[in-house]
Amino acid sequence: MAATSESPVFRASTTAPVNIAVIKYWGKRDATLNLPTNSSLSVTLSQRSLRTLTTASCSAAYPAVDELTLNGNPQDIQSSKRTLACLANLRALRQEIEKADSSLPKLSALPLRIVSENNFPTAAGLASSAAGFAALVRAVADLYQLPQSPTDLSRIARQGSGSACRSLMGGYVAWRAGELADGSDSLAEEVAPQSHWPEMRALILVVSAEKKDVPSTTGMQTTVATSELFSTRANAIVPARMTAIETAIQNRDFPTFAEITMRDSNGFHATCLDSWPPIFYMNDVSRAAVRLVHDINNLAGRTVCAYTFDAGPNAVIYYLEKDSSLVAGTFKAILGTALEGWSGPFYEPVKNITDSGVPLDQVDSRAVDVLKSGLSRVILTAVGEGPVSVQSHLVGEKGEILSSS
Amino acid sequence: MAATSESPVFRASTTAPVNIAVIKYWGKRDATLNLPTNSSLSVTLSQRSLRTLTTASCSAAYPAVDELTLNGNPQDIQSSKRTLACLANLRALRQEIEKADSSLPKLSALPLRIVSENNFPTAAGLASSAAGFAALVRAVADLYQLPQSPTDLSRIARQGSGSACRSLMGGYVAWRAGELADGSDSLAEEVAPQSHWPEMRALILVVSAEKKDVPSTTGMQTTVATSELFSTRANAIVPARMTAIETAIQNRDFPTFAEITMRDSNGFHATCLDSWPPIFYMNDVSRAAVRLVHDINNLAGRTVCAYTFDAGPNAVIYYLEKDSSLVAGTFKAILGTALEGWSGPFYEPVKNITDSGVPLDQVDSRAVDVLKSGLSRVILTAVGEGPVSVQSHLVGEKGEILSSS
Repeated sequence: MAATSESPVFRASTTAPVNIAVIKYWGKRDATLNLPTNSSLSVTLSQRSLRTLTTASCSAAYPAVDELTLNGNPQDIQSSKRTLACLANLRALRQEIEKADSSLPKLSALPLRIVSENNFPTAAGLASSAAGFAALVRAVADLYQLPQSPTDLSRIARQGSGSACRSLMGGYVAWRAGELADGSDSLAEEVAPQSHWPEMRALILVVSAEKKDVPSTTGMQTTVATSELFSTRANAIVPARMTAIETAIQNRDFPTFAEITMRDSNGFHATCLDSWPPIFYMNDVSRAAVRLVHDINNLAGRTVCAYTFDAGPNAVIYYLEKDSSLVAGTFKAILGTALEGWSGPFYEPVKNITDSGVPLDQVDSRAVDVLKSGLSRVILTAVGEGPVSVQSHLVGEKGEILSSS
Repeated sequence: MAATSESPVFRASTTAPVNIAVIKYWGKRDATLNLPTNSSLSVTLSQRSLRTLTTASCSAAYPAVDELTLNGNPQDIQSSKRTLACLANLRALRQEIEKADSSLPKLSALPLRIVSENNFPTAAGLASSAAGFAALVRAVADLYQLPQSPTDLSRIARQGSGSACRSLMGGYVAWRAGELADGSDSLAEEVAPQSHWPEMRALILVVSAEKKDVPSTTGMQTTVATSELFSTRANAIVPARMTAIETAIQNRDFPTFAEITMRDSNGFHATCLDSWPPIFYMNDVSRAAVRLVHDINNLAGRTVCAYTFDAGPNAVIYYLEKDSSLVAGTFKAILGTALEGWSGPFYEPVKNITDSGVPLDQVDSRAVDVLKSGLSRVILTAVGEGPVSVQSHLVGEKGEILSSS
């Protein structure tokens, strides 16, 4: 299947980040277009810790049908309407520029071969679809040399996975719900770049494997259809929180950012519990993390950390680098360094901390026990940049699939 | 301290039941008068299983200050504003009838000695304050031979403990929130007597001791003050549920009764989670009970059981006697008869059940494991009558304190 000299292989590769929402996306007003019932806002996490690497390539030498390989496993692309929708949109944009400039190679007519790899285990329970679809859209857009901005492309990535639209930008990113039926005003915008508030850190507490209660797409549809509290959240509560947290980000006001983040996570899980049948994503280990965050803030005498939980039990704890001792230090003292994950590019300021940041005899001892026995690993990371174009391709010059590892 | 022949001891004794709400009381509009933000509805549980026995007595031979002994422990009655309020209200009613009929003994002028005992361990985590204040009010009202109806007296019991007002009646009892500032329209009414729907059974799953998150009085004030979802619950959701569940009770429509019960429990706990800081009463054992109830209903092909959770992790599971095999039988098969509580007056129809009502290999095995290891006992009970006047006194003829055991 190698390309001949008459059939060159065109390639572009990118990395894309994970993002963790502080105002949660939960509920679709249009399931096909992934149009949400409310706006959301996330922090893009550093690709020095977690990233998807994707190479998009196309060649006349390839078989006629587009191909996609994820983490070494060939995917049935024809059964993924979401992937097909993204590729169709991107091809259409390529066709426009090919029409406008006949000197351009007709890449839109060539079969695609896309290869993607995450550098983090699926078992970690981190939503990989956001980084995955952001990388796919960014890589194909780069392959096609599309002139569209990240915000323009976010409309396409959104159709792959709602939250993917927020992984096309770095820093602090809002996804505006929009109102139009065609979704053209439902797009991601950078609220502030990573450089505006680079001190934001995130400690991810990965809870030992447990069967997920309900997949998030099913779960959010259940909530929208059945929770009698949900419309209050979507229509009244979240809009006010969006305004308030954007102001907090502009002012680098961590205490306000933190309280809104925690309250929105709790409110989102409250609507899950209010669904019929009820949906539980948080478990006793999650509750222990909540308790410890409140204890640390109380003992510190100010708000130094904030938890948030997606559709699963893992806690993401945001804090500022200057409070590494208080926050990461306390969790390190509680969990011990034997637990996997006390390493990597953001471990340096935490590495030499030997004391707990707050007196351990004053935090909830039961929560400490539950947390110690319920985690499989931690991940230390930080706010980061958006997708980055790279030269480390997962498709060789002759079209062969390579591995990054 | 024995009464002399010149100073007779007047006595009256009553038992009073526990009640478990199916539409939850959570939030006060007036903390002193215990006026709620929403109406609630409960099932009175049989005193054959759980009851408070209280003797109210008065005598000129007693010390001048009223006395109260609970489960053998003398209480500092002067520090309990709630108890003082109940006694002052009852004395005022006695004074009215003494004024109207001068032949009556002036009991209102005599010091009280009240002795109360629960037949269930405090450690069971069952709200004993409802039965306790209902028994206290009923016993003193009987001692004073007050003509007021249970509904009239419910205004007084409510000031002792909000939910106590519902323990003054049997069967299915509504507590109308009322609107007046003085609380005169905030009272309990019998929606249907026990005899209307006597087949209702309750299986209480007592979760192994865990420190309670937040006392309920504090918890409900936090929710009212901080949950942005709460007003939707109190103002819009609960009123509709009250109407619907009263109709279901009138029609003996268990599936509707059950769904409303489960949804209201979930909605109540959702507003707890939405509070700031968040309040968690349910834990992983509670979640396992929720899962198993849904599994049993799904496997039965109809709604045969319903869970509800108060401000703690214990599950109360309602079902009809005809479905004892499906519900109690399944829990008996899961939990085993070694667990304390498979006994008592309501065990008979369950006693000879040896098979699980639904195929155990089709229920969530993880939930089974969590439940098996997380319970300390079960209590088998049923809908029951209101307070009953009894001759087994806890105060002797000479005023001495006796014990029921």
